[in-house]
Amino acid sequence: MSSSAPIGVFDSGIGGTTVVKELMASLPNEKIIYFGDTARVPYGNKSAGTVIMYSRQIVRFLLEKKVKAIVIACNTASALALDALKSELEVPIIGVVKPGAKAAAEVTKSNKIGVIATRATINSGIYKEFLHKTNPDIQVFEKACPLFVPLVEEGWISDDITRQVIHRYLDDLIEQGIDALVLGCTHYPLLTDEIGKVTGEKIKLVNPAYECAREFRYVLEENDLLCQEKHIPEHEFYVSDGPKAFAELANSFLGEGIIKRENVKVHNFENDDSILRTYEIKRRG
Amino acid sequence: MSSSAPIGVFDSGIGGTTVVKELMASLPNEKIIYFGDTARVPYGNKSAGTVIMYSRQIVRFLLEKKVKAIVIACNTASALALDALKSELEVPIIGVVKPGAKAAAEVTKSNKIGVIATRATINSGIYKEFLHKTNPDIQVFEKACPLFVPLVEEGWISDDITRQVIHRYLDDLIEQGIDALVLGCTHYPLLTDEIGKVTGEKIKLVNPAYECAREFRYVLEENDLLCQEKHIPEHEFYVSDGPKAFAELANSFLGEGIIKRENVKVHNFENDDSILRTYEIKRRG
Repeated sequence: MSSSAPIGVFDSGIGGTTVVKELMASLPNEKIIYFGDTARVPYGNKSAGTVIMYSRQIVRFLLEKKVKAIVIACNTASALALDALKSELEVPIIGVVKPGAKAAAEVTKSNKIGVIATRATINSGIYKEFLHKTNPDIQVFEKACPLFVPLVEEGWISDDITRQVIHRYLDDLIEQGIDALVLGCTHYPLLTDEIGKVTGEKIKLVNPAYECAREFRYVLEENDLLCQEKHIPEHEFYVSDGPKAFAELANSFLGEGIIKRENVKVHNFENDDSILRTYEIKRRG
Repeated sequence: MSSSAPIGVFDSGIGGTTVVKELMASLPNEKIIYFGDTARVPYGNKSAGTVIMYSRQIVRFLLEKKVKAIVIACNTASALALDALKSELEVPIIGVVKPGAKAAAEVTKSNKIGVIATRATINSGIYKEFLHKTNPDIQVFEKACPLFVPLVEEGWISDDITRQVIHRYLDDLIEQGIDALVLGCTHYPLLTDEIGKVTGEKIKLVNPAYECAREFRYVLEENDLLCQEKHIPEHEFYVSDGPKAFAELANSFLGEGIIKRENVKVHNFENDDSILRTYEIKRRG
């Protein structure tokens, strides 16, 4: 595998572009091939078997694009599919959950950590599991915040309604005495400033996207896969539906002008031979 | 087809239970078999081909349960799949969109109608199309309200935050001089009281679920399919994922105690032979 090959990043939809932003900052020479499964978003309410199947299809697509390593930029897919994919792949692959949990365990002094995420990620118990593996004394206070994603997607970021919703969700966690808060959904880092105003300086906000980009740099170095060429790479973005809506929203996530509409290509799994093959194999089994 | 057979109702998830509520009021003797496609919700961002395929699978499931007629209790599936299904079926089938649009066209005097729905339903232009077919002079003012569904699912109904969000979405429409407002998403009727406080008495709120139940009664009568037996029927609820969460939320939609957890059964299309057959047919084609 060549170090000049691109890296693959995938998410259930648009949220993973917050991970892309951190990867661009941490690894400016790496060319990124992004896949957002916008036709089948969200993964959060789907069974493990389905999420693994979808993730496998996307990984196959990325491998056809000759990626040298893969980042799962989706909390649910990281939680449910990472182990299965790792055992099947020859290229390195990491998710967002583990680096996020690790960083939170490192910064806490009170051993009281808050985790906010979608209902599905909270129900999976994955952050609690990783945090307890790191340190069994850590108390984890979890809260599903289902309104944060639509608030971000409406663009209501610095907004009085959003501030009230943040208070509604977080006041209880703050009262518990947490000193670290994991932003366990890819959309939430866009609310960092507003959340910080509510939580105050004593509570450290942990962004798994940032931690994941740091960890991924380390993984590339370790495998001699760091791109040696100094250049401004041209990233590629693929979605399974709605390229126009993706380009618009992704630009608000990444900062203006990174993604042009015509550069977002659609890959439709429903008409893909690889899916037919998957089903046929299942049938023979 | 026997008039004592059950009726089939389906939705992309839980929202269609608001239609079930209206059907129970309008047709108290009819046994309902409900299917909520909770594993693949939402349909709103999926292509027409996919929504038709999913709807076909569910209709096949309902026909195996020997239903005598079918209600599509989902705005997106009504918009995208009704015509295709109608031409294939021998039992009567209706959707929610047409009855909703018809009722709005009947109540307006100013010929200015507001439509609120999910982004996908608004983008489909289906309400505008039906309203213009009924009366080309009608002006339609549309607004996607993506926060209403998560607000309802959080249970924040009589809530100050919800009232502010309603104002944010509706103040512009009210200024345009509308005198009818279509609640074009199955979740929205749960906000009727709060929306009514904002829109005032001069704007008539149109609930397509209610209109659809009235229309469905007429369809059953016309086809001699109205149940003649006077009894309290035992309804059946099927979902494709998350029966526990469905039962809890559906009870808050329907009123307490209608659905018991153990009575919600899971039907998993991913392991269904009928899907394998569908894909095989597609491949031969």
